[in-house]
This record gives sequence, C-alpha cells and structure tokens, in this order.
Amino acid sequence: MFREEKDFLGSLKIPADSYYGIHTARALKNFPLSGYKVPKELITAYALVKKACAIANTRLGYIEEKIGNAIIKACDEILEGKFQEEFIVDALQGGAGTSTNMNINEVIANRANEILGYKKGQYYPVHPLEHVNLHQSTNDTYPTALKIAALFMLEDLSEAIARLQGVLQEKEKEFAFILKIGRTELQEAVPLTLGREFSGFAEAISRDRWRVWKCKERIRVLNIGGTAIGTGLTAPRDYVFFVIEVLRELTGLNISRAENPVGVTAFADDMVEVVGILDAYASNLFKISNDLRLMNLLKEVRLKPVQPGSSIMPGKVNPVVLEATMQVALKVKANSYIVRECASSSTFQIVEFMPLIAFSFLESLRLLLNVTTVLKEHLTKLKADKEFCKKYFEESFSIITALLPLIGYEKAVEIVQEMKTKEVKNIKEFLQQKFGNKILKLLSPESLNSLGYDEYELEELRNDNNS
Amino acid sequence: MFREEKDFLGSLKIPADSYYGIHTARALKNFPLSGYKVPKELITAYALVKKACAIANTRLGYIEEKIGNAIIKACDEILEGKFQEEFIVDALQGGAGTSTNMNINEVIANRANEILGYKKGQYYPVHPLEHVNLHQSTNDTYPTALKIAALFMLEDLSEAIARLQGVLQEKEKEFAFILKIGRTELQEAVPLTLGREFSGFAEAISRDRWRVWKCKERIRVLNIGGTAIGTGLTAPRDYVFFVIEVLRELTGLNISRAENPVGVTAFADDMVEVVGILDAYASNLFKISNDLRLMNLLKEVRLKPVQPGSSIMPGKVNPVVLEATMQVALKVKANSYIVRECASSSTFQIVEFMPLIAFSFLESLRLLLNVTTVLKEHLTKLKADKEFCKKYFEESFSIITALLPLIGYEKAVEIVQEMKTKEVKNIKEFLQQKFGNKILKLLSPESLNSLGYDEYELEELRNDNNS
Amino acid sequence: MFREEKDFLGSLKIPADSYYGIHTARALKNFPLSGYKVPKELITAYALVKKACAIANTRLGYIEEKIGNAIIKACDEILEGKFQEEFIVDALQGGAGTSTNMNINEVIANRANEILGYKKGQYYPVHPLEHVNLHQSTNDTYPTALKIAALFMLEDLSEAIARLQGVLQEKEKEFAFILKIGRTELQEAVPLTLGREFSGFAEAISRDRWRVWKCKERIRVLNIGGTAIGTGLTAPRDYVFFVIEVLRELTGLNISRAENPVGVTAFADDMVEVVGILDAYASNLFKISNDLRLMNLLKEVRLKPVQPGSSIMPGKVNPVVLEATMQVALKVKANSYIVRECASSSTFQIVEFMPLIAFSFLESLRLLLNVTTVLKEHLTKLKADKEFCKKYFEESFSIITALLPLIGYEKAVEIVQEMKTKEVKNIKEFLQQKFGNKILKLLSPESLNSLGYDEYELEELRNDNNS
Amino acid sequence: MFREEKDFLGSLKIPADSYYGIHTARALKNFPLSGYKVPKELITAYALVKKACAIANTRLGYIEEKIGNAIIKACDEILEGKFQEEFIVDALQGGAGTSTNMNINEVIANRANEILGYKKGQYYPVHPLEHVNLHQSTNDTYPTALKIAALFMLEDLSEAIARLQGVLQEKEKEFAFILKIGRTELQEAVPLTLGREFSGFAEAISRDRWRVWKCKERIRVLNIGGTAIGTGLTAPRDYVFFVIEVLRELTGLNISRAENPVGVTAFADDMVEVVGILDAYASNLFKISNDLRLMNLLKEVRLKPVQPGSSIMPGKVNPVVLEATMQVALKVKANSYIVRECASSSTFQIVEFMPLIAFSFLESLRLLLNVTTVLKEHLTKLKADKEFCKKYFEESFSIITALLPLIGYEKAVEIVQEMKTKEVKNIKEFLQQKFGNKILKLLSPESLNSLGYDEYELEELRNDNNS
Repeated sequence: MFREEKDFLGSLKIPADSYYGIHTARALKNFPLSGYKVPKELITAYALVKKACAIANTRLGYIEEKIGNAIIKACDEILEGKFQEEFIVDALQGGAGTSTNMNINEVIANRANEILGYKKGQYYPVHPLEHVNLHQSTNDTYPTALKIAALFMLEDLSEAIARLQGVLQEKEKEFAFILKIGRTELQEAVPLTLGREFSGFAEAISRDRWRVWKCKERIRVLNIGGTAIGTGLTAPRDYVFFVIEVLRELTGLNISRAENPVGVTAFADDMVEVVGILDAYASNLFKISNDLRLMNLLKEVRLKPVQPGSSIMPGKVNPVVLEATMQVALKVKANSYIVRECASSSTFQIVEFMPLIAFSFLESLRLLLNVTTVLKEHLTKLKADKEFCKKYFEESFSIITALLPLIGYEKAVEIVQEMKTKEVKNIKEFLQQKFGNKILKLLSPESLNSLGYDEYELEELRNDNNS
Repeated sequence: MFREEKDFLGSLKIPADSYYGIHTARALKNFPLSGYKVPKELITAYALVKKACAIANTRLGYIEEKIGNAIIKACDEILEGKFQEEFIVDALQGGAGTSTNMNINEVIANRANEILGYKKGQYYPVHPLEHVNLHQSTNDTYPTALKIAALFMLEDLSEAIARLQGVLQEKEKEFAFILKIGRTELQEAVPLTLGREFSGFAEAISRDRWRVWKCKERIRVLNIGGTAIGTGLTAPRDYVFFVIEVLRELTGLNISRAENPVGVTAFADDMVEVVGILDAYASNLFKISNDLRLMNLLKEVRLKPVQPGSSIMPGKVNPVVLEATMQVALKVKANSYIVRECASSSTFQIVEFMPLIAFSFLESLRLLLNVTTVLKEHLTKLKADKEFCKKYFEESFSIITALLPLIGYEKAVEIVQEMKTKEVKNIKEFLQQKFGNKILKLLSPESLNSLGYDEYELEELRNDNNS
Repeated sequence: MFREEKDFLGSLKIPADSYYGIHTARALKNFPLSGYKVPKELITAYALVKKACAIANTRLGYIEEKIGNAIIKACDEILEGKFQEEFIVDALQGGAGTSTNMNINEVIANRANEILGYKKGQYYPVHPLEHVNLHQSTNDTYPTALKIAALFMLEDLSEAIARLQGVLQEKEKEFAFILKIGRTELQEAVPLTLGREFSGFAEAISRDRWRVWKCKERIRVLNIGGTAIGTGLTAPRDYVFFVIEVLRELTGLNISRAENPVGVTAFADDMVEVVGILDAYASNLFKISNDLRLMNLLKEVRLKPVQPGSSIMPGKVNPVVLEATMQVALKVKANSYIVRECASSSTFQIVEFMPLIAFSFLESLRLLLNVTTVLKEHLTKLKADKEFCKKYFEESFSIITALLPLIGYEKAVEIVQEMKTKEVKNIKEFLQQKFGNKILKLLSPESLNSLGYDEYELEELRNDNNS
Repeated sequence: MFREEKDFLGSLKIPADSYYGIHTARALKNFPLSGYKVPKELITAYALVKKACAIANTRLGYIEEKIGNAIIKACDEILEGKFQEEFIVDALQGGAGTSTNMNINEVIANRANEILGYKKGQYYPVHPLEHVNLHQSTNDTYPTALKIAALFMLEDLSEAIARLQGVLQEKEKEFAFILKIGRTELQEAVPLTLGREFSGFAEAISRDRWRVWKCKERIRVLNIGGTAIGTGLTAPRDYVFFVIEVLRELTGLNISRAENPVGVTAFADDMVEVVGILDAYASNLFKISNDLRLMNLLKEVRLKPVQPGSSIMPGKVNPVVLEATMQVALKVKANSYIVRECASSSTFQIVEFMPLIAFSFLESLRLLLNVTTVLKEHLTKLKADKEFCKKYFEESFSIITALLPLIGYEKAVEIVQEMKTKEVKNIKEFLQQKFGNKILKLLSPESLNSLGYDEYELEELRNDNNS
C-alpha cells in the first residue's frame, strides 16, 4: 500500500505506513551506496535539537502550542528509541546532511500529526518545514546535533579510558617487584621492573583520559540559530538567543552559542582538532597492544586465553584482543584522515561533506568506546611470568649498566669483555661474586623504581667492601 | 533453548537452533566492536573455497563420500544465500580471520549433519575441523576466499566503469561543437570545446577501466594448500595440487597456485598494489566530480535535479550525486590507507590483520561499484548550457592565444592592451572586426578539436587578407 | 689529511680538520639516504640541552670546572651559529637519534679540547661520553631538544598566525558593506557581505592561533634526567632535579620535569596531539586558500599579481601564493601522518623512529611559519571587486530568502516561479518594485551583518506599506 | 653588481652574473617556503626536453639554425651538470611548475646568448619564450620532464631491487637447512627452515621488482606537444608529431605521444598508480625489516654491527639500518599520500599542484633507490644463529603439528597434554623417544622445504615401526 507525496520535482509513491516522506524516499533512491544507516547517536542528538527548537519556537510564540507539543512528544518518542527503522537514508549521502535533516523532519511531522489525530503524508496541521524545521537549516542543526552526539560519547569514552587507566595502575602495583630487562630499539637495554613498565602505560593512558576529557571544550561552541550560513537569516533574534539555552538545559551539556556562527558553519577545524586527539589515543593503544603481544611472545606476560587460535595447531592461543585493538586503532586513524580531508575540502559557506565527517567521527568514537572496555576487561586478567622476566634479567649483559655509578664505565667495559670470553650465562651471579652483595641493592626493584641514584647511598656502597 | 558446546577452554551455552557453534560464540563475546558483519561477498567466496576443498578431499579419498557430499550440499545452500544470519562474527575481529573460518566451518558442519539426519551441536558424523577444514588453515583459505571475492567484484567494477566511460564518450560527441574557455589554475586559459573537455574525462576513466581490469592479474595467485604458513604442512601433496584445479573450475576464474605459498601467506603486498589501483580511480572520480560541480557553479553544465536541496531556500538544488561520489572517493582512499598499514604491520609467517584488510578492501569495491553506477545514471542526464559556455568564451581575453600562430606574440600583447583600454566586452567580435572572418577558422570547434595547427592551412589564412 | 679514530667496532679515518668524530663518520657511511641534514633548529636546541647538562654537572661537582667551562663555551659557539657544517648526519638516520647526539657530543668535545689547547681527535681532557654526555642518554636528551626546538617555533608560529588573523580582520572591516551572494554546496544560497565572509576566515584563524598557542602545554613536560629508559639509571638524583631548572632558565621556557619519565620516553603521543593541531591549521589554510581562488575565479576578489603566469598566454596571472599555501597544507598533513605512524610503531622503552618524527615535525613548523608570513603579506594586498559581488547578488534568485520573514515561504515560492517565467535578470530590482524600498532594509549590509532579524523592526516593515 | 630586467609587472634587479632572470627572481621572492631546490633529476630531464624541442623546432625550420644550435649546446652543458646553482626556485612553488620552466628557459637563453657572444639579460638573439619555450607550455613540458626523470629512476630502482632479491636468494640457500619455528600472530606456530622464511622475503621482493619494472608502462605516454591544455594550441602539427620522436631518440626510452593529451594534461592518475606501486614495495620493506629486527631480538639472526648503539650501555648495538629502512618506508607512504591528494585536487584543464607531485614522487624514488642499496649491503653480512633457531624449534610444542599426518589430531592433543604435565623441555627429543627416528624425516629440512607431504613416503613411515 502506498501513498503519494509531492515536491517541486514531482511526485513519488511512499509506503503508506511509513513515517518518512518524499524527501527521504528521494534520498533513498539517490544514494544506494554504503548500505550503512546514519548512526543512531546522531539521530538521537538530532531529536534533541528538534525538540529544543520546538520548545523555543513554541515558548516565543512562533508555533502554536498544540503543534509545538505534538512535535515535542514525537521527539520524545524518538529519544525513547522508537522509529529507528524509519531513519533509512544512506550514511554516505551527498547534500551536506539535508537528507538526514529531512528524514527527521518528516518522521517527526508525520508522528506529530498522528498524535493530533491526522493522517500520515498530509503534513497537516504539522508541517516538516514550516514547523518542525522552523528557523532552522540543515547547516546549523546538523553540526549542532553531531557535536551533541560527540559530547555525550566523549564523556563516556573519557570514563572508559579512566577505567583502563585504573587496571594499568593495578598492574603497576601488582608487578612492582618483578625485575626485567628493558629494551630499546628491540635490543636489551637496562633493567627496570615490570611494574615500572606498566606505569608508563598507565601514564600514557592518563594523558589520553585528560585529552579526551578536555577536547570537549573544542566542540562545545555551536552554530545553532545561524541557519543556512551562520548569519541567522530568516530566524528572529530572540529565538537565536533562546534556543541554545533550551538545548543546554535539555542536554545538561556545557554548550554555548557561537559569537559568529559564520566562522563555525563554514569550517570543520574543530572536528579536525578532536580527531587529532583520538589519533593520539589510537597511537597509544596500538603501541601498548603491540608491546604486550611482544612481551607475550617473549613470555614475560601471559594473556588470558579467550578462544582457541587455530584449526591445525593443537592448543595454540593468539593475542586476539590485542590484535583487535590494533585494528581499531588503524580504523580510527583512517577515519581521522577522512575528517581532515572533508574539512580541508569545504567550500564557501558550508562544509558539504558533513555526512561523511559525522559517520567517520562517530564510528571512531563508538569503536574506541567498545575497544577500551574490551581491552580493559582483558588486561584485568593479564599475568606476569616472573621466571621468564628473571631469566632475561639475569642473563643480560646490559644489567651491568646499573653498576656504572659504582664501578665506572672503563671497568664495566672490561668486565663485559671478560664475561663474553668466559661465556658467562648468569650475569647477575657473576657480578655478585665479583662485587659482593652490595650490587643487589643497585639491582633491586626499589632502586630501579626510583628516579636516579642517591649520592649518599652510593657513597656508602662505594665504601662498603664487605657487603 | 540452549545446547552446550565445549572446546579446550571450557564450555558455553549456544542457542539450540543456531548453526554456528562455540568458536563463533566465543568470537561474538570477544569482539563486541564495530557491529559490522563480515561482508557477504567474503562469506560467499569462502563457501566456494570450502566446497572446493571438500570436493578435492572426497575425490582423493581423504573424506568418505557420504560426508563429503553433505558438506558440498551445505556449501551450495550458503551459495544460494541461505544461513546469512548465522554469520555473525564482528568484522573487526582479531585472530587473522580464524573466527570467520570457524563460523563457516561450524555452520557447514551443523548443516551437513542435519542433512545426514543428525543433530546440530554434536559434530558427528561431520566434524568442523576434521572434515570441513581438512587440510586447510585460516591462513590459506581466508586470503584465498578474499581474493576470489575481490576477483568477482573487480570484474563487475570493470564493467561498471566501462559503462561510465560510455556515457562520457556520448557526452563528448554531444558537446563536440560547444565552444568554451578552458581554465588552468582556476584562471581562464585557452579555448576548447566542451566535448574535448569530456574526452579528457572519458580518457581518464578508460585508463581506470584498463587498470581495474588488469589488476586482477595481481591477485590471481593463491596460497590455498599452503595451510598454516605456506609450507603445506599436514596436507598431502596430491590434495595441494588438485584443490586449485577444483577451485578454478568452480569459480570460472583464471586463478593459479602460488609456486611458493610461504611468500604469499606472510605478505599482503598484492592487496596494497590493488588498493593503489582503486586510489587512482578514486582520484579521477574526485577530480571529475569536482570539475563538474564547478562547471555547474559557472552554469556551463546543468545537472539533473534529483532532490530539493534546502529547507530554507526555495528551489535550491545541489550537486548531491557529485558530492556523494567525492565522499566515496575519500572513503576509498581511507580504506586503502588501512590496507597499506595492515600489510606493513604483518609479522613473521602471516598477515594478522587480514580481517581488517578484507573488510576495508571489499567495502571499497562495493562502494565504487555502487557509486559508479549511480554516477553513470546521473551523467546520462547532464546537459550543456551553450549560452554560458559561449559567453565565457567570447568574453575572455585568453582566446587571443588561438591567434598566436597567425599574428605573433608581440601583436597579441599589443591587442590585449588595446582591448583592456577600450574595455572591450565581446572579445571574439572585436577580433573578428580586426582580423576578419578568417579568425573564425582558428576559433572553430574543428580547429580546437584537432591536435596542433596545420601549417598549410595556416599559410592560407596568412595570405588571405579578405576573408 | 686524515686522523684516525677508534671505537669498539674498529678504526676509521676522519678528516683531520673536522670537529665531528668516528661516531658521526660511521653514521655518515651508514645512512646515505635522504641528503637532508638534521634541522638547524634541532641542533640549536640540542646545544642548549648540552649546555644545561654541563652547567648542572659542573655546579654539582660531577665535572671539574675547567672542563665544564670549555664545554659551555663550545655550546655557546654553536648557539651563535658556528660549526653548522659539522652537523652532517642524515636526517633519516636509524638509531633513535644516537647519531645526532654523538655528532653533537663529538663537535662539542673537540671544540672544547681545542679551547683548552688540545688537539682534535684525542678526546682529552674533554671526552664526548664521559663529560659532554655525562648523566645523559640520547633517549632523554633528544626528545628534550626536539620539544625545546618545537616550543620556540610554536611561539613564533602563534605570533605569525596572529598577524594573519589581523589582516583578515582588516579585510573584514574593509569589505563590511560589500553585498554578495553566499554559496553552499557550490550553489548560490543566501546573501551576506564580503566582510562577513572574511569574518569567518578570521574566526577560524583565531581558533588556530589559540590552539597553536595552547598546544605548547602538551610538550612542556620533559624527560631530561631519565637517561636510557626514563628511570634515571646512572644519573645522580640531585642532577636529575637540577638540570631541568638550569634548562628552564637557559631557555626562558615554561618547561618542567616529567614525574615519571618512563611514560614519556616510551611514547610520542604528545607529538601526535600537536601535529593534530597543525592539521587543524593546515585544513583551515587549505579551505581559505581554495575559497579565495574560487572567489578570484568568480572575480569577487582580485589577488595582487606576483608573477606572470604563463609562457603562452599573454597577461595570464595565476593565484600562485594560494596554490603554494595549499601545497604546504598537504605537506603538513603528510608529515603528521608520519608522526602518527612513528608514535604508533614505538616498541618497549623508547620511540625508535624519533629522527623521522623530529624531521617531519620541525619541517611542518618551518613550512607553516614561512607560508603564514607569505600568505599574510599576500592578503594584505587583496582587493574586492564590488561590481562582480553586486552583480551576483542582484541576479540571484536566492536573495529572496532574506524576505521570508516578511512575505512567508509560500509567497516566496510563488514569486520565484514568476521571476523564472518572466526571465527576470535583476532580481533585486524586481523585488524592490514589487515590495517597495522596505526590502532594502532586509537586504542591507547592516541587516546581513547582524545575527537573526529583530522582531520589532520587522513588525515595522510589515506595517509599512509605503516605504 | 646587478642588471635590471622587466616583465609586464615591472622591473627587478638581478645579480649581473646570474644565468637566471626575472621570472626566476620573482619566484624566489614569492616562495621562501621549504628551502628545498627542485630535484636535480627533474632539472636534467627538463634539459633533455628543452633540447628535444629545440632540435624539433630547428629541423622543421621554426627556429633558425644558429639559435637552435646555441640552445642545444646550452642544454648539453646542463646535462653535463653545469649551472646547477642557477636552479634556485623553491620546490614548493605554486604555479603548476611555471617557475621551474621559466628558470630553465632563462638559464638556457642566457647561456645560449653568451655562447653566441651576447650578454646575459638581453635575451637577444635567443629569447626564453620565443625560442627556448617555442611551441611549449609548462603544462606539457613539466609533466613530460617529470615522467622522463621517473622512468630513468624506476629503471635504476628496478635493478637495485633485483640485487636485493639476489641477496635474499643467497640467504635462502645459505639457511636452507636451519630448522626453526614459524610464528603466526606472534605466537609459535609450525616449523620451517630459516631458508624457507627467506624464500618468502625473496619472493615478495621479486614481485616488487616486477611491479616496479612494469609500472614504467604507466607513465610512458607523454603529453608533450599538447601545450597549455593538451589541444596543441599554437603548436604546428608537424612539430607535435616530430618532437616525441626526437625525445625518444635522445632518451633511449620507450616513450610515446598521447593520442589525446587533453586527458593526460588534466589528470595525474598515472602518478597515483605508480606511487601505489611504490607503496607496495615500501610495505614489503617495512614488514621484512621489522621481521628481521624481531628475529634479531630473538637471536635467530645476527645483524652485522655498523655503529655503537648507545652512549650509556657498553657494547650495545642496534638494528639501525633496518630502522632507517622502516623510516624510509613511512616517508614513501607519506609522499604517496601527497601525490594522491594533489591528483584528486586537480581542477579543470591542468594539475596545478604538479610541483608538489614532482618533489614528493622523485624524493620517494631517490629514497627507495638509496635505501635498497644500503639494505642489500647490510643483508649480505647477515648471519644465522643456528643454536637459537634450533633451541626454539626443539622446545616448541608446536612442532608436533608436523606429525599430524602420521599420528592424527586426537593423539597429538593427548601427547601435548602429557608433555605439559611432565614439563618436557626438549619436545623434539621426547617425540623422538616416543615415535622413533622416523619422525626426524617429518621434521627434516627437506620435508619442511617441500610443499605438502608425499602420501607414499608417509605410508612407508606409517608402516615402519622400527625406524
């Protein structure tokens, strides 16, 4: 069963039951591209924006109350999760987001009319443009909705990162006394504790938490009220000033109105800045995951097995969660590339590739949110293998570096030579026999966990010939 | 209702009806990441690979016929499009594709057992590893399936590009006699015909057609039979040599066995090469679409309106199909980035990020396939605006360049100066008055559509003082 | 003439006059790759770091004064610009920057010995490792020097951007009353003033200024004193705490010591964050330059000619400065890609690709610094073409949108239809005849430069039938 | 001492001695950006193009012989390497390469006049535009010169890659009988020989050799003769057809004339395709280098020390050549990004960002050429550590996989369990005791180096209870 709808290009048959209308149907036909829908988070945020506009317009008397209330109710239903199957336009639509805006306008209008006892497709008494979209343009509502969606997700992400940081800090404590050999340029370097190594992970992740938290500042200035190009053309000034207040209250977010929306509407540099932040987190995730799978290869740590790894090799288990994390990091960086190019390619008064920015940016946020939680769970169960850590430590020539303050560089070189000639296996024992137990102090976790050596303590060691 | 299944990590409850089993269920739990399924094209190609292996193993006597036939029938059903809802593992799974391979092994095994009258979840008489996966590893079947999926899609893409080329060539003819001003560095340069401009588009796209067609060569060498790391370990040699023949017959593709599968299994450079080809096409699509929307801005061409463009501005229509095309081009380039990084990051004997390669690569192919068709349809309806083309042509100082062979550079500079002083509007008319109708020959479509000038014809013009 | 120097791999002939030594010579031989030298800014900053270490070590008594002072003097000479030709190692060196560190250590040691009256190549009494590099590692001094170099350049860049912003704001004022048609999706949209358009540019650039200024915060925490892996191994604690103070005083920068240098030494996420900031600026430069060359194509603005543009076409002038700016933006984004991949690829306790990070990052800063100044100068001389702006404005159907608050959407659609039928050329005049002079108020620069319309003023217009 | 030169923008002082002129001087002033010169390879190729044009124009009578010969002589001198210091325009110039073309035109003209006994700066009798640039445009000569430069370098690169392949094949033979454990997903997988592993490297590199060799096909079609936009405007047809023949002869390259230069002048998709090829090689270099430094970490191979690695740790040696190779790979991929974006951003009739394409593309070729040679030298000296290979092999549970065809999967699982319970260290010995010497056959290099197992041989093993 179909109904017929019209626009200035002609008429189209629309499924009689559908809440979307002709604009949506045209978009559906025009963009059979990715098969991906517009992200749910964007739809939700858009419903919030539409609700705020309806409230502002109603309170200021630009829409009569009956109509305004019906719109608000329709928005609330979308916010409850209803009508998701009505938002069908392809995520890779051209048109700067107009199709998404119209999809939402139509669903709200049809539902509002239904609430008021009228039929779908008539757009009476509630009209998608004259009421639902009143004093709005795609060009101000779309970026506003996108930023609101992002602000919510960034908040969640920041919290998820904090939990990941927590787990890393627990491991830092748990492994505080496990000696191991550090490696630089994939060669054994100087000793440290496994806990200290995890402290580095925790510190990097704490920076991520901070930067993700702070980057909300970068997108809290919204161009809502600016309409088509940021000048507010066709919108009354009292609405422009009021709608942002309503939206702030509705969302509970610390958002504000752009002083000069022209400079926000035509640019997406704030998006570029934020995806740069996500890149920093992604690069940390990639590095930490890679380090952990290398430590796993070297058997210094043991990952919890989560699934059999092979259909041929009995008992093989792979670091699949770390691999998935690294893949997410790559995908996030690819999305950031997209956002940067879309922002760079913007022309004149708007950012025409906003739909691709939205899709890519929100996908990154969702992926990071999910993977952060998965990784955090996984690392909770990570164990150290003290024996292997100890073995690498004790068999490494490099630990002699810790003795340099005591014995000097020349002596150290001489002893390394001696050990090589004698093919010494257990370096630590050899050094212990040579210099006595005092070297244990220099090679202790306590010593390696503190920053630099204490000149007084060292002086004692120097004088202590019998320790 | 649930059944219980076991592996060496323990047991898990599986929905009683499901054809997938415990490996799939673990993957589902381990990777709640993107929400994207493994691309349908990969599942289909994988079913073809499984079928080929089953045929080879059965014919050579490694699987008894009853079991082999049941597996083959199950594969055929998947190939008919059944059981799609059973392939549920996340596209961004870690594990080098093992979860996808096991998902398929389990669905086939359960279905084969069902066909033979046994229950799901028992894996008897047909076992997912011992029969469906016999003489196989994820590491040879997954890249093989990916390349087969790609080969089919590349063939389709090549044909779609040919159709796009066809439309551009039609426009080349249609616009062959429309004079316009060419532009370099976004400044008016020298004249040409609109048809000639489209001949450039057609030529670029014809190169794309050729390169997409040829790049199938790059991925037709398969490592099937190489098992875990390309040495063929655990697989009998007769199977290794036979399975590729079966697969060639089943697919009808010009595929062949790698001489040394070790060098294929550990590398994805062939994928990198192919996405480089897609990048070339993407860059042409971006450039042509951008040119067309600029020509549309200048009103030299008229795009068919496909949807109203604005909720504020009455009658505004935007170049939405071109914008969508440009977005696809960006997304394709982002996917290529991913493939390159995954290939670069491969370690030792396999490419562990193969799932992300597969997802990104097939997504690019699908997007390009869809957008090529959409763009082709759209361009079919593109019209020239002769008046605007003519206006730019006649009002451009630059057309004097066409007269250089006749009047020389010095004279040309002098006349440009004169025209500027006199604020001449219609340059063409002015030149015509000055030099007579013979200049029309130099400014004719015929002359501008040929390469260089003919010295004899020019000599005639030089001598012709009365034309 | 050559001298011979030794290390534990053997001996090598070194030009007798050279201040660099065997480590540098080996690097020269090992890395005949790019032909690019290590950036001068890094060398200078490294000399500052070496000087700070020498001061700290001397004051605390770890180096005797005579030697310390010679080192300090040698550093000062480098800071004056001397010995630049001695820093010859290839910028793309492997080894995490050790070759650059050793190049500097050797030059300083040889020069210090010379100052003290000893010969080059003897490394007595001043030794490159035991004195110049005392309590240091490449892994703490290199990133420290890089960040100091960057901090200076970011300060300069921030100031240069402020000057660019200033010019844009001047243009905003200069063009405040020039009416033009705004464009969205490369189609005529609603009117604004050219000044308002430049206000958008100015605003975007002011965000860049702010973010570049602020991002210094991200790299002011230094790992100096952390030695090889951030634990401070082999360095006395008093030195670790003192050296940063000396460095702060020497540089005048607001730098501080990392609480846990382990988490700084192994990561380059701070670099990733900063290049993300540069990307945002680059994307704005690209967008603004592209807009300006499109406006130049449409003749709304006139760029100052800076060079003849063609060897064929008499008088052709191209927007070459804008093109150069766009190229710089692309190169900056490519460098940022490099930094992100290097940071992601870091393994275990250090970032081994630090030399490539340093080269790419500093190159971006230098390019942006230069291009910002060049662009600023160029835009100073940019002129508006009021006639063309006016023409587009008056001939655009879209300006009717400004009248919507007065006449309503339905009426507007109707009139657009009428104008199309009548093939009206001058839309503004037509509307003026139809609705009287009152529409001039709605289409005035004052009205278009303010945000939204004033309901009271509009009411007056509505009531005013004779204006 | 200065001379004064003029163009239509005014006059400028030029150093009296310089061969370059006012166009170059303007460019120098306009683009104080990167400090990088135009690559020498491009200058050389450009001189070849200029020479070819001069020959064609002279032979066809468009330039008188005396002048033609002077131009040709000047070109020859540049080809001998003279006047390099006269090519001073910045590599990141805007203007589509006009500044580089003019720099060359001016140097040739001034030198040609000098040869003929006239003064520099007079441009008489030889004029840079009317003679040196006759029938040319930047837009056809620049891409032509770039492709010629690239064709020469690709040939060199292809040969360098062949030598690298040769070294890898030598290592393949040298290590043919060294057993080791293969690794997938950074976990021990199934056994192979070290030689087999290197065969994989060799095979990947042989693909690179082939693709680099073949990709010359992609850029051998030149738009020379097409002048400004590919229509050949202002050029006589006989010249258009003749100049390519001259150029072919001069260069000895298999180049040809584009049928439709319009479709070549406006696009750089051929460049995109070729950098995609370089990306494939770069990704292989990155992967192989990373594998080797991991094998070095695991001590399976020993790299030749090329420089001391640390200023703190006595005797530390790092895989610096591999690190440099990986850095080059990253830089190449960054350059490819640039080329793709420049190609995508091309507008209308030319590719305006050609200077950045040229710089990036030629830089990549030079870097790859250099690093290939460096890496090849380095790998020549690479040694295997049989003991460590053997140790990992014999201590790995995974080697039991090789016995699957003999003992079956169930039995294998059982034995793995037994070995784990008994904490067996030397897996190989344990299996040997259990199944006799016949397993040695399955674990022999011969067996592991062949593809799949031989069913007859296996049958023998199955029957042989006493081996």
